[in-house]
Amino acid sequence: MKELPLSKVYQLLEPGPVVLLTTARKGRANVMTMSWHMMVEFEPPLVACIVSSANHSFAALRSTGECVIAVPALELAPKVVKVGNCSGRDLDKFMAFGLTPIPAARVAPPLVAECFANLECKVADTSLVKRYNLFVLEVLKAWRDPAQKNPKTIHHQGYGKFIVDGETIKLKSRMR
Amino acid sequence: MKELPLSKVYQLLEPGPVVLLTTARKGRANVMTMSWHMMVEFEPPLVACIVSSANHSFAALRSTGECVIAVPALELAPKVVKVGNCSGRDLDKFMAFGLTPIPAARVAPPLVAECFANLECKVADTSLVKRYNLFVLEVLKAWRDPAQKNPKTIHHQGYGKFIVDGETIKLKSRMR
Repeated sequence: MKELPLSKVYQLLEPGPVVLLTTARKGRANVMTMSWHMMVEFEPPLVACIVSSANHSFAALRSTGECVIAVPALELAPKVVKVGNCSGRDLDKFMAFGLTPIPAARVAPPLVAECFANLECKVADTSLVKRYNLFVLEVLKAWRDPAQKNPKTIHHQGYGKFIVDGETIKLKSRMR
Repeated sequence: MKELPLSKVYQLLEPGPVVLLTTARKGRANVMTMSWHMMVEFEPPLVACIVSSANHSFAALRSTGECVIAVPALELAPKVVKVGNCSGRDLDKFMAFGLTPIPAARVAPPLVAECFANLECKVADTSLVKRYNLFVLEVLKAWRDPAQKNPKTIHHQGYGKFIVDGETIKLKSRMR
Protein backbone atom coordinates (compact mmCIF):
# COMPACT_ATOMS: atom_id res chain seq x y z
CA MET A 1 0.00 0.00 0.00
CA LYS A 2 1.27 3.47 -0.91
CA GLU A 3 0.37 6.53 1.13
CA LEU A 4 -2.32 8.74 -0.41
CA PRO A 5 -2.36 12.50 0.29
CA LEU A 6 -5.22 13.37 2.64
CA SER A 7 -6.33 16.08 0.20
CA LYS A 8 -7.39 13.35 -2.24
CA VAL A 9 -9.48 11.26 0.14
CA TYR A 10 -12.77 12.92 -0.88
CA GLN A 11 -12.26 11.69 -4.45
CA LEU A 12 -12.61 8.13 -3.16
CA LEU A 13 -15.71 8.54 -1.03
CA GLU A 14 -17.69 11.29 -2.78
CA PRO A 15 -18.81 8.98 -5.62
CA GLY A 16 -20.68 6.85 -3.05
CA PRO A 17 -19.00 3.42 -3.18
CA VAL A 18 -19.95 0.57 -0.88
CA VAL A 19 -17.13 0.30 1.67
CA LEU A 20 -15.95 -1.99 4.43
CA LEU A 21 -15.46 -0.71 7.97
CA THR A 22 -13.04 -2.47 10.29
CA THR A 23 -12.91 -2.15 14.06
CA ALA A 24 -10.92 -3.85 16.81
CA ARG A 25 -11.81 -4.53 20.40
CA LYS A 26 -10.12 -6.65 23.04
CA GLY A 27 -7.62 -7.85 20.45
CA ARG A 28 -10.29 -9.02 18.03
CA ALA A 29 -10.84 -7.38 14.63
CA ASN A 30 -14.19 -7.20 12.91
CA VAL A 31 -15.45 -5.92 9.57
CA MET A 32 -18.83 -4.72 8.33
CA THR A 33 -20.29 -3.48 5.03
CA MET A 34 -21.40 0.15 4.86
CA SER A 35 -23.11 2.40 2.32
CA TRP A 36 -24.37 5.29 4.40
CA HIS A 37 -21.42 7.67 4.46
CA MET A 38 -20.53 11.09 3.08
CA MET A 39 -17.71 13.63 3.02
CA VAL A 40 -18.01 16.47 5.53
CA GLU A 41 -14.74 18.37 5.01
CA PHE A 42 -11.87 18.23 2.51
CA GLU A 43 -8.81 18.54 4.73
CA PRO A 44 -8.27 17.24 7.22
CA PRO A 45 -10.81 14.86 5.69
CA LEU A 46 -13.93 14.43 7.77
CA VAL A 47 -16.42 11.70 6.94
CA ALA A 48 -19.87 11.14 8.42
CA CYS A 49 -21.34 7.65 8.52
CA ILE A 50 -24.19 5.70 10.03
CA VAL A 51 -23.27 2.58 11.97
CA SER A 52 -26.45 1.07 13.34
CA SER A 53 -26.50 0.17 17.01
CA ALA A 54 -27.82 -3.20 15.80
CA ASN A 55 -24.40 -3.86 14.25
CA HIS A 56 -21.76 -5.69 16.29
CA SER A 57 -19.28 -3.02 15.12
CA PHE A 58 -21.21 -0.25 16.85
CA ALA A 59 -19.96 -1.03 20.36
CA ALA A 60 -16.35 -1.32 19.18
CA LEU A 61 -16.51 1.97 17.29
CA ARG A 62 -18.22 3.68 20.20
CA SER A 63 -15.79 2.47 22.85
CA THR A 64 -12.47 2.59 20.96
CA GLY A 65 -13.17 5.61 18.71
CA GLU A 66 -11.19 4.02 15.88
CA CYS A 67 -11.92 2.34 12.56
CA VAL A 68 -10.61 1.82 9.05
CA ILE A 69 -12.70 2.51 5.95
CA ALA A 70 -11.59 0.13 3.20
CA VAL A 71 -12.76 0.57 -0.39
CA PRO A 72 -13.33 -2.64 -2.35
CA ALA A 73 -13.38 -2.99 -6.13
CA LEU A 74 -15.90 -5.01 -8.12
CA GLU A 75 -13.94 -8.27 -7.82
CA LEU A 76 -14.57 -8.26 -4.06
CA ALA A 77 -18.34 -7.77 -4.41
CA PRO A 78 -19.30 -11.37 -3.47
CA LYS A 79 -17.21 -11.13 -0.28
CA VAL A 80 -18.54 -7.66 0.50
CA VAL A 81 -22.09 -9.04 0.42
CA LYS A 82 -21.14 -12.04 2.57
CA VAL A 83 -19.58 -9.67 5.12
CA GLY A 84 -22.86 -7.77 5.17
CA ASN A 85 -24.98 -10.89 5.55
CA CYS A 86 -23.58 -12.01 8.90
CA SER A 87 -22.42 -10.63 12.24
CA GLY A 88 -19.03 -10.50 13.95
CA ARG A 89 -20.89 -11.74 17.02
CA ASP A 90 -20.96 -15.17 15.46
CA LEU A 91 -17.72 -15.51 13.54
CA ASP A 92 -14.31 -14.12 12.57
CA LYS A 93 -15.25 -12.60 9.23
CA PHE A 94 -11.65 -12.05 8.10
CA MET A 95 -10.99 -15.77 8.50
CA ALA A 96 -14.38 -16.89 7.21
CA PHE A 97 -14.20 -14.91 3.96
CA GLY A 98 -10.47 -14.94 3.30
CA LEU A 99 -9.86 -11.24 3.91
CA THR A 100 -6.33 -10.32 4.99
CA PRO A 101 -5.91 -7.89 7.90
CA ILE A 102 -2.80 -5.67 7.72
CA PRO A 103 -1.69 -3.60 10.73
CA ALA A 104 -2.56 0.10 10.39
CA ALA A 105 -0.09 2.86 11.26
CA ARG A 106 -2.18 5.10 13.51
CA VAL A 107 -5.12 3.00 14.73
CA ALA A 108 -5.70 -0.49 16.12
CA PRO A 109 -8.25 -1.75 13.54
CA PRO A 110 -6.58 -3.38 10.52
CA LEU A 111 -6.45 -2.37 6.88
CA VAL A 112 -7.94 -4.86 4.43
CA ALA A 113 -5.20 -6.02 2.05
CA GLU A 114 -7.62 -6.87 -0.76
CA CYS A 115 -9.14 -3.36 -0.86
CA PHE A 116 -7.59 -0.80 -3.21
CA ALA A 117 -7.80 2.02 -0.65
CA ASN A 118 -7.77 2.11 3.15
CA LEU A 119 -8.46 5.11 5.39
CA GLU A 120 -7.37 5.08 9.03
CA CYS A 121 -9.94 7.03 11.06
CA LYS A 122 -10.66 8.24 14.55
CA VAL A 123 -14.07 9.34 15.77
CA ALA A 124 -14.19 13.15 15.82
CA ASP A 125 -17.77 13.82 16.90
CA THR A 126 -20.39 11.69 18.63
CA SER A 127 -23.06 14.30 19.25
CA LEU A 128 -25.53 12.67 16.82
CA VAL A 129 -24.75 9.06 17.72
CA LYS A 130 -27.56 8.74 20.21
CA ARG A 131 -30.20 10.19 17.92
CA TYR A 132 -29.13 8.83 14.52
CA ASN A 133 -26.16 6.44 15.02
CA LEU A 134 -24.26 9.14 13.10
CA PHE A 135 -20.49 9.28 13.65
CA VAL A 136 -18.19 11.98 12.32
CA LEU A 137 -14.75 10.51 11.58
CA GLU A 138 -11.43 12.18 10.87
CA VAL A 139 -9.17 10.43 8.38
CA LEU A 140 -5.67 10.33 9.90
CA LYS A 141 -3.85 8.40 7.20
CA ALA A 142 -4.81 7.10 3.77
CA TRP A 143 -3.40 4.25 1.68
CA ARG A 144 -3.83 3.20 -1.90
CA ASP A 145 -2.73 -0.03 -3.60
CA PRO A 146 -0.85 0.99 -6.75
CA ALA A 147 -1.20 -2.55 -8.11
CA GLN A 148 -4.96 -2.12 -8.54
CA LYS A 149 -5.27 0.15 -11.57
CA ASN A 150 -8.61 1.79 -12.41
CA PRO A 151 -10.64 -0.16 -9.88
CA LYS A 152 -14.40 -0.17 -10.46
CA THR A 153 -16.40 0.43 -7.30
CA ILE A 154 -19.92 -0.75 -6.57
CA HIS A 155 -22.94 1.29 -5.42
CA HIS A 156 -25.81 -0.28 -3.51
CA GLN A 157 -29.38 0.16 -4.72
CA GLY A 158 -31.07 -2.11 -2.20
CA TYR A 159 -31.63 -5.86 -1.79
CA GLY A 160 -28.32 -6.96 -3.28
CA LYS A 161 -28.60 -4.86 -6.42
CA PHE A 162 -25.39 -2.95 -7.17
CA ILE A 163 -24.49 -0.45 -9.86
CA VAL A 164 -20.94 -0.91 -11.12
CA ASP A 165 -18.82 2.07 -12.19
CA GLY A 166 -19.16 2.65 -15.93
CA GLU A 167 -17.45 5.16 -18.17
CA THR A 168 -15.83 8.34 -16.88
CA ILE A 169 -16.71 11.76 -18.30
CA LYS A 170 -14.87 15.03 -17.86
CA LEU A 171 -16.68 18.37 -17.81
CA LYS A 172 -15.34 21.86 -17.34
CA SER A 173 -15.95 22.46 -13.67
CA ARG A 174 -14.83 25.05 -11.17
CA MET A 175 -15.84 22.70 -8.37
CA ARG A 176 -13.05 20.98 -6.51
CA MET B 1 -44.20 12.95 -12.02
CA LYS B 2 -45.59 9.91 -10.21
CA GLU B 3 -45.48 9.58 -6.46
CA LEU B 4 -42.76 7.25 -5.15
CA PRO B 5 -43.25 5.35 -1.86
CA LEU B 6 -41.07 6.86 0.87
CA SER B 7 -39.73 3.39 1.66
CA LYS B 8 -37.89 3.41 -1.69
CA VAL B 9 -36.17 6.76 -1.34
CA TYR B 10 -32.92 5.26 -0.01
CA GLN B 11 -32.51 3.29 -3.24
CA LEU B 12 -32.10 6.61 -5.06
CA LEU B 13 -29.58 8.26 -2.76
CA GLU B 14 -27.58 5.36 -1.33
CA PRO B 15 -25.62 4.83 -4.58
CA GLY B 16 -24.16 8.34 -4.21
CA PRO B 17 -25.40 10.28 -7.26
CA VAL B 18 -24.69 13.95 -7.80
CA VAL B 19 -27.95 15.79 -7.04
CA LEU B 20 -29.46 19.23 -7.34
CA LEU B 21 -30.83 21.03 -4.29
CA THR B 22 -33.50 23.68 -4.72
CA THR B 23 -34.48 26.32 -2.18
CA ALA B 24 -36.85 29.30 -2.21
CA ARG B 25 -36.68 32.54 -0.32
CA LYS B 26 -38.67 35.72 -0.67
CA GLY B 27 -40.42 34.28 -3.71
CA ARG B 28 -37.20 33.49 -5.52
CA ALA B 29 -36.09 29.92 -6.25
CA ASN B 30 -32.48 28.82 -6.45
CA VAL B 31 -30.66 25.61 -7.26
CA MET B 32 -27.22 24.24 -6.38
CA THR B 33 -25.22 21.08 -7.13
CA MET B 34 -24.47 18.72 -4.25
CA SER B 35 -22.50 15.53 -3.76
CA TRP B 36 -22.03 15.34 -0.01
CA HIS B 37 -25.14 13.56 1.20
CA MET B 38 -26.05 10.22 2.73
CA MET B 39 -29.03 8.27 4.00
CA VAL B 40 -29.59 8.37 7.77
CA GLU B 41 -32.84 6.41 8.18
CA PHE B 42 -35.07 4.31 5.89
CA GLU B 43 -38.55 5.49 6.84
CA PRO B 44 -39.49 8.17 7.28
CA PRO B 45 -36.45 8.79 5.09
CA LEU B 46 -33.82 10.96 6.72
CA VAL B 47 -30.95 12.35 4.67
CA ALA B 48 -27.85 14.18 5.91
CA CYS B 49 -26.10 16.66 3.66
CA ILE B 50 -23.45 19.35 3.72
CA VAL B 51 -24.46 22.75 2.36
CA SER B 52 -21.51 25.07 2.76
CA SER B 53 -22.16 28.43 4.34
CA ALA B 54 -20.28 29.83 1.34
CA ASN B 55 -23.20 28.73 -0.87
CA HIS B 56 -26.01 31.17 -1.55
CA SER B 57 -28.45 28.31 -0.80
CA PHE B 58 -27.22 28.05 2.78
CA ALA B 59 -29.13 31.06 4.09
CA ALA B 60 -32.35 30.01 2.35
CA LEU B 61 -32.12 26.47 3.70
CA ARG B 62 -31.27 27.73 7.18
CA SER B 63 -34.06 30.27 7.36
CA THR B 64 -36.90 28.45 5.58
CA GLY B 65 -36.04 24.86 6.61
CA GLU B 66 -37.18 23.55 3.25
CA CYS B 67 -35.57 22.17 0.09
CA VAL B 68 -36.03 19.72 -2.75
CA ILE B 69 -33.41 17.15 -3.69
CA ALA B 70 -33.65 16.50 -7.43
CA VAL B 71 -31.78 13.60 -9.05
CA PRO B 72 -30.47 14.25 -12.57
CA ALA B 73 -29.57 11.61 -15.16
CA LEU B 74 -26.48 11.65 -17.37
CA GLU B 75 -28.12 13.80 -20.07
CA LEU B 76 -28.32 16.70 -17.60
CA ALA B 77 -24.62 16.49 -16.63
CA PRO B 78 -23.53 19.62 -18.56
CA LYS B 79 -26.29 21.68 -16.87
CA VAL B 80 -25.50 20.16 -13.48
CA VAL B 81 -21.91 21.35 -13.81
CA LYS B 82 -23.00 24.82 -14.95
CA VAL B 83 -25.31 25.07 -11.94
CA GLY B 84 -22.33 24.22 -9.74
CA ASN B 85 -20.03 26.73 -11.42
CA CYS B 86 -22.01 29.83 -10.49
CA SER B 87 -24.00 31.37 -7.66
CA GLY B 88 -27.66 32.24 -7.24
CA ARG B 89 -26.40 35.53 -5.86
CA ASP B 90 -25.65 36.59 -9.42
CA LEU B 91 -28.35 35.04 -11.58
CA ASP B 92 -31.58 33.05 -11.85
CA LYS B 93 -30.09 29.64 -12.56
CA PHE B 94 -33.41 28.06 -13.63
CA MET B 95 -33.74 30.69 -16.34
CA ALA B 96 -30.06 30.78 -17.24
CA PHE B 97 -29.73 27.03 -17.80
CA GLY B 98 -33.21 26.16 -19.02
CA LEU B 99 -34.32 24.17 -15.99
CA THR B 100 -38.06 24.04 -15.37
CA PRO B 101 -39.37 24.64 -11.85
CA ILE B 102 -42.58 22.76 -10.94
CA PRO B 103 -44.51 23.58 -7.75
CA ALA B 104 -43.98 21.02 -5.00
CA ALA B 105 -46.84 19.65 -2.88
CA ARG B 106 -45.53 20.14 0.64
CA VAL B 107 -42.74 22.72 0.43
CA ALA B 108 -42.10 26.08 -1.22
CA PRO B 109 -38.94 25.18 -3.22
CA PRO B 110 -39.74 23.79 -6.66
CA LEU B 111 -39.19 20.37 -8.18
CA VAL B 112 -36.95 20.26 -11.25
CA ALA B 113 -38.97 18.93 -14.18
CA GLU B 114 -35.93 17.59 -16.04
CA CYS B 115 -34.79 15.41 -13.10
CA PHE B 116 -36.05 11.80 -12.96
CA ALA B 117 -36.69 11.97 -9.21
CA ASN B 118 -37.56 14.78 -6.79
CA LEU B 119 -37.66 14.62 -2.99
CA GLU B 120 -39.51 17.27 -1.00
CA CYS B 121 -37.66 17.83 2.28
CA LYS B 122 -37.85 19.76 5.51
CA VAL B 123 -34.90 20.32 7.83
CA ALA B 124 -35.19 17.92 10.77
CA ASP B 125 -32.01 18.66 12.72
CA THR B 126 -29.63 21.61 12.75
CA SER B 127 -27.43 20.67 15.69
CA LEU B 128 -24.34 20.12 13.49
CA VAL B 129 -24.93 23.07 11.15
CA LYS B 130 -22.70 25.43 13.05
CA ARG B 131 -19.79 23.02 13.32
CA TYR B 132 -19.94 21.24 9.94
CA ASN B 133 -22.70 22.84 7.80
CA LEU B 134 -24.41 19.46 8.25
CA PHE B 135 -28.19 19.40 7.87
CA VAL B 136 -30.42 16.42 8.59
CA LEU B 137 -33.45 16.47 6.27
CA GLU B 138 -36.69 14.52 6.38
CA VAL B 139 -38.17 13.53 3.04
CA LEU B 140 -41.88 14.38 3.13
CA LYS B 141 -42.87 13.39 -0.37
CA ALA B 142 -41.07 11.73 -3.27
CA TRP B 143 -41.69 11.84 -7.01
CA ARG B 144 -40.39 9.84 -9.92
CA ASP B 145 -40.75 10.54 -13.64
CA PRO B 146 -42.01 7.31 -15.23
CA ALA B 147 -41.02 8.60 -18.68
CA GLN B 148 -37.32 8.38 -17.79
CA LYS B 149 -36.58 4.64 -17.89
CA ASN B 150 -33.33 3.29 -16.43
CA PRO B 151 -31.69 6.67 -15.93
CA LYS B 152 -27.93 6.61 -15.47
CA THR B 153 -26.74 8.82 -12.62
CA ILE B 154 -23.35 10.49 -12.30
CA HIS B 155 -20.89 10.35 -9.39
CA HIS B 156 -18.35 13.10 -8.78
CA GLN B 157 -14.67 12.25 -8.41
CA GLY B 158 -13.35 15.80 -8.20
CA TYR B 159 -12.51 18.57 -10.65
CA GLY B 160 -15.30 17.85 -13.14
CA LYS B 161 -14.54 14.12 -13.41
CA PHE B 162 -17.69 12.01 -13.15
CA ILE B 163 -18.23 8.26 -13.11
CA VAL B 164 -21.37 7.26 -15.00
CA ASP B 165 -23.49 4.29 -13.85
CA GLY B 166 -22.41 1.13 -15.65
CA GLU B 167 -23.85 -2.38 -15.51
CA THR B 168 -26.02 -3.60 -12.64
CA ILE B 169 -25.21 -6.80 -10.76
CA LYS B 170 -27.41 -8.77 -8.39
CA LEU B 171 -26.01 -10.69 -5.45
CA LYS B 172 -27.76 -12.73 -2.81
CA SER B 173 -28.04 -10.28 0.05
CA ARG B 174 -29.92 -10.18 3.31
CA MET B 175 -29.32 -6.44 3.45
CA ARG B 176 -32.25 -4.20 2.70
